[in-house]
Amino acid sequence: MTDLPPKTPITQVTTGPLPASEKIFQPGMLHPELRVPMRRIALHPSADEPPVTVYDCSGPYTDPAAHIAIDAGLSRIREGWVAGRDATQTYAGRVVQAADNGFATGAQLTPEYTQRHLPRRARAGQAITQLAQARAGIVTPEMEFVAIRENLGRQALAQSVRDGESFGAAIPDHVTPEFVRDEIARGRAVIPANINHPELEPAIIGRNFLVKINANIGNSAVTSSMAEEVEKMVWAIRWGADTVMDLSTGRNIHNIREWIIRNAPVPIGTVPLYQALEKVGGVAEDLSWDIFRDTLIEQAEQGVDYFTIHAGLRLAHIPLTVDRVTGIVSRGGSIMAKWCLHHHRESFLYTHFAEICDIMRAYDVTFSLGDGLRPGSIADANDAAQFAELETLGQLTRIAWDHDCQVMIEGPGHVPMHKIRENMTKQLEVCDEAPFYTLGPLTTDIAPGYDHITSGIGAAMIGWFGTAMLCYVTPKEHLGLPDRDDVKTGVITYKIAAHAADLAKGHPAAQIRDDALSRARFQFRWQDQFNLSLDPDTARAFHDETLPKEAHKLAHFCSMCGPKFCSMKISHDIRDAARAEAGMAGMAQKYRDGGDLYMPAAAKA
Amino acid sequence: MTDLPPKTPITQVTTGPLPASEKIFQPGMLHPELRVPMRRIALHPSADEPPVTVYDCSGPYTDPAAHIAIDAGLSRIREGWVAGRDATQTYAGRVVQAADNGFATGAQLTPEYTQRHLPRRARAGQAITQLAQARAGIVTPEMEFVAIRENLGRQALAQSVRDGESFGAAIPDHVTPEFVRDEIARGRAVIPANINHPELEPAIIGRNFLVKINANIGNSAVTSSMAEEVEKMVWAIRWGADTVMDLSTGRNIHNIREWIIRNAPVPIGTVPLYQALEKVGGVAEDLSWDIFRDTLIEQAEQGVDYFTIHAGLRLAHIPLTVDRVTGIVSRGGSIMAKWCLHHHRESFLYTHFAEICDIMRAYDVTFSLGDGLRPGSIADANDAAQFAELETLGQLTRIAWDHDCQVMIEGPGHVPMHKIRENMTKQLEVCDEAPFYTLGPLTTDIAPGYDHITSGIGAAMIGWFGTAMLCYVTPKEHLGLPDRDDVKTGVITYKIAAHAADLAKGHPAAQIRDDALSRARFQFRWQDQFNLSLDPDTARAFHDETLPKEAHKLAHFCSMCGPKFCSMKISHDIRDAARAEAGMAGMAQKYRDGGDLYMPAAAKA
Repeated sequence: MTDLPPKTPITQVTTGPLPASEKIFQPGMLHPELRVPMRRIALHPSADEPPVTVYDCSGPYTDPAAHIAIDAGLSRIREGWVAGRDATQTYAGRVVQAADNGFATGAQLTPEYTQRHLPRRARAGQAITQLAQARAGIVTPEMEFVAIRENLGRQALAQSVRDGESFGAAIPDHVTPEFVRDEIARGRAVIPANINHPELEPAIIGRNFLVKINANIGNSAVTSSMAEEVEKMVWAIRWGADTVMDLSTGRNIHNIREWIIRNAPVPIGTVPLYQALEKVGGVAEDLSWDIFRDTLIEQAEQGVDYFTIHAGLRLAHIPLTVDRVTGIVSRGGSIMAKWCLHHHRESFLYTHFAEICDIMRAYDVTFSLGDGLRPGSIADANDAAQFAELETLGQLTRIAWDHDCQVMIEGPGHVPMHKIRENMTKQLEVCDEAPFYTLGPLTTDIAPGYDHITSGIGAAMIGWFGTAMLCYVTPKEHLGLPDRDDVKTGVITYKIAAHAADLAKGHPAAQIRDDALSRARFQFRWQDQFNLSLDPDTARAFHDETLPKEAHKLAHFCSMCGPKFCSMKISHDIRDAARAEAGMAGMAQKYRDGGDLYMPAAAKA
Repeated sequence: MTDLPPKTPITQVTTGPLPASEKIFQPGMLHPELRVPMRRIALHPSADEPPVTVYDCSGPYTDPAAHIAIDAGLSRIREGWVAGRDATQTYAGRVVQAADNGFATGAQLTPEYTQRHLPRRARAGQAITQLAQARAGIVTPEMEFVAIRENLGRQALAQSVRDGESFGAAIPDHVTPEFVRDEIARGRAVIPANINHPELEPAIIGRNFLVKINANIGNSAVTSSMAEEVEKMVWAIRWGADTVMDLSTGRNIHNIREWIIRNAPVPIGTVPLYQALEKVGGVAEDLSWDIFRDTLIEQAEQGVDYFTIHAGLRLAHIPLTVDRVTGIVSRGGSIMAKWCLHHHRESFLYTHFAEICDIMRAYDVTFSLGDGLRPGSIADANDAAQFAELETLGQLTRIAWDHDCQVMIEGPGHVPMHKIRENMTKQLEVCDEAPFYTLGPLTTDIAPGYDHITSGIGAAMIGWFGTAMLCYVTPKEHLGLPDRDDVKTGVITYKIAAHAADLAKGHPAAQIRDDALSRARFQFRWQDQFNLSLDPDTARAFHDETLPKEAHKLAHFCSMCGPKFCSMKISHDIRDAARAEAGMAGMAQKYRDGGDLYMPAAAKA
């Protein structure tokens, strides 16, 4: 935000498939026009194994067949789905104002997007949200899309070994469109999908589905190219971000967001309060319902898929924070607390909550109810302020559901390991299983520079316990703006956390990739090992640092242990003998059962 | 081990204190000659807080008052403690053989250490181990040393808030020498302290003490300077490695180890099997008890503090591994399995276990009973092979205890989150609470290049559940030899895991550092925040990337959110108003208790 070093402009966004990967598409049954993308990773012929299909949120950017031009935007694949319902209508929409871009002009102004589509909203009396349709028994194209997507191309795994501890989640062997509909109808999952974001490839967020991750991006203080802003999103989804939050502040918020959304295949989230605050010159006390309301409509018309709304922070909660070690650490929370204290009244987010619901409902913007009082230190974890707000979020959840709105609940923060489970349990209880969306949590405060790790530990655990989406933390957390490498590190760390959680919950397909990679490792198929990893480039580069030659890609060792001490090589060497020995398995059992045929000398002595 | 790129020789080891840190020493009460080192981190005067004292395993290298010369070695502080007992005697010792250094000669031969001290061993009939002395009711200097060390200079915290879930551990408010003695006598903790390693600053490993971490180092295939080998150890302990394992293979093992031990203030561990295998030209089948026994004595005389011994791998266990996805992944395990199958008999480690105990006992070398059958993939976690071996390790533990030997038990490996707890529970049960020493565990297989993180998650959890020492994993795991940066990343990641575990277990002093850092964060004392962090250099560098000026070290914001959106700044701005509001705390309570004085418009509608 302040005196950042100038950056090299990025003229092109990153495109092209990941190594050995092909984008495949699966059609729908109910909605045959669907083309659900997946990434298929080919293995070396010597593996004699089918390719491995993995979840793919990278959009057309990794599809060589797609023509990418950010001034044209992505294909509007959902346009027909939405328009076909005839429950919505286009309209002229709000006129863009100078304040929307912070009064930037001339060279300071990010150009408007190249084209403008009329915004669309629900016709009067029509309930168009995924929740409303699910309740009405309708399986939308979005619902079938995510059902296919979650299955990763596999058929029902009736025969699969189901392992894991899901803490009461109900993950099916095979995800059907009807299961998706049911989960959404119950409020236990959401598909953030604004009807004005037709470029979206829908994704589902709920505890009975694959754990998702979010990456935050934001504009820089220096005027940067539109391509650079779009590239931040493209880069994050390339490595696995399921959703992206645009947390831009300063000037050009409106125009940059338009460039991002028109090129975004993933749900885009925002905190509308940030833009509203810019509109009042950064003076929190000057915020008003009118300005906020106008900002909601502005962003809803653009196609933002979910809004963080800090409506749960009540005036009465603020005194509970005064003795905290780190006070209020949520930006939105601190802004609203300041407003509440200044005016000495409940926030307009709380008092106008029903009207907010009406707006969200007209566009199907999903609520992400913000935790303005999340703990910012180990000392403040699970305190009265945090849990008081969480209870209010539970009340607001029911109100939003009454308005047919989809809801997620945001969660902490800084929480030591032994207090993580309580967060999840309490959230499930007071919010009726609405999807939990947590930041970390960070399990210690003492490692700035490594908070992707302090939080990755907590994220894996809370994901296991039931959190549906994990908001990433980068190594720069608490210290500064993340750069490109930090974003990638944050995303990969959170993919690890989410996948570790899927494994532990017993997701029926999660272990397929682990097993394929481990077989590749054991068989010294180095290329396959790289290609199956979350970050093939880094895995390969690390290997090649010490063994750069192509021939080493077939070597039955690596530089870590060298050829003589490679346990896997030795393990292969002895396999035949071990199998012969297995003929003695009956005897082996006998030994294990306490047999002492081979009494050690020690025991005899 | 093969064609590594040449490295720049390191002519000097890293010395000097960490930022704002001073080394202080505390004397003993029972043993007034003790000088127990701690690191005291000074805070900015504006903090108006006492300095924070933290555990310090970095040795004299971070003490500006110490004269460091690796050819002279560290002060032999324990020499008097050991000799004073009169239960040991010096003797001529084993003659170094050409095979000990892999027959290296001339320029290929790492020079012998500059001086030779006669080795020392127990007199006939004398039981000199820490375990034997503890059982005899003796509080050794080592025991008092670690008691003082664990308390971090604080007095008894009778008034401290004890938080956390320790899963049955019994962590005292204040560690007394008598408590240490008792824990050692029960076998629940060890002080690895070979009587031939007088340079050692003793550390304790047990579930009722601070969680410790180990870093592995090893020589390079290229002939490197002695300083470079010593530097690897110095670098690892600078960042927090409590023990270091020298896993060198190839030539010069003996001489390099001598340089390391003479300069090591931390316990040094080895896997003697690696050197024994070198002595038989890498042919596992040619290993014999005689060669192994000779290697144990060679290393015990040098002062190695703990030996990994894979004695739990029995012939009958091997067939249990044939259907594994990744077979046997422990180097030692695969070597011994090969030997067992070739000779079709139990390993000499198992059949000669009592004799091994006798050797360990004479020098007080601690057992680290190796898990040769640890799982190398998620698919193989907690399988029959792994647990069969663990049960054998439990039997061997009791035999070793009968011989007055200290024992740790090594653990996995690759384990998904939901199977971690079972490892710990079973280990506590079958090994009678002997300290568990685990590698990771890695919670997924799919992220080579990031296995410090996949394993850091598992390490934090198993540390919480009761593991006493965590063996680090670097980003290069599975891919190649770690370099200097990888070692640091691995150590810091594991310090995070160990500290997160200490917090969650409810260690009474663990949160002191978190609280001090969080207060510094909230008060914008940037220098204090850096200085209190596990890696001050990285924290500062990350901050300075975007805000390099000295003035920014006093700024009430960072580049992450900028001045307008800094929640902590706003939080300060509103503190007075919030405190006034706190006068309404009674009313606040009323609202939280279901009060609806401010019924939202939504609810009314």
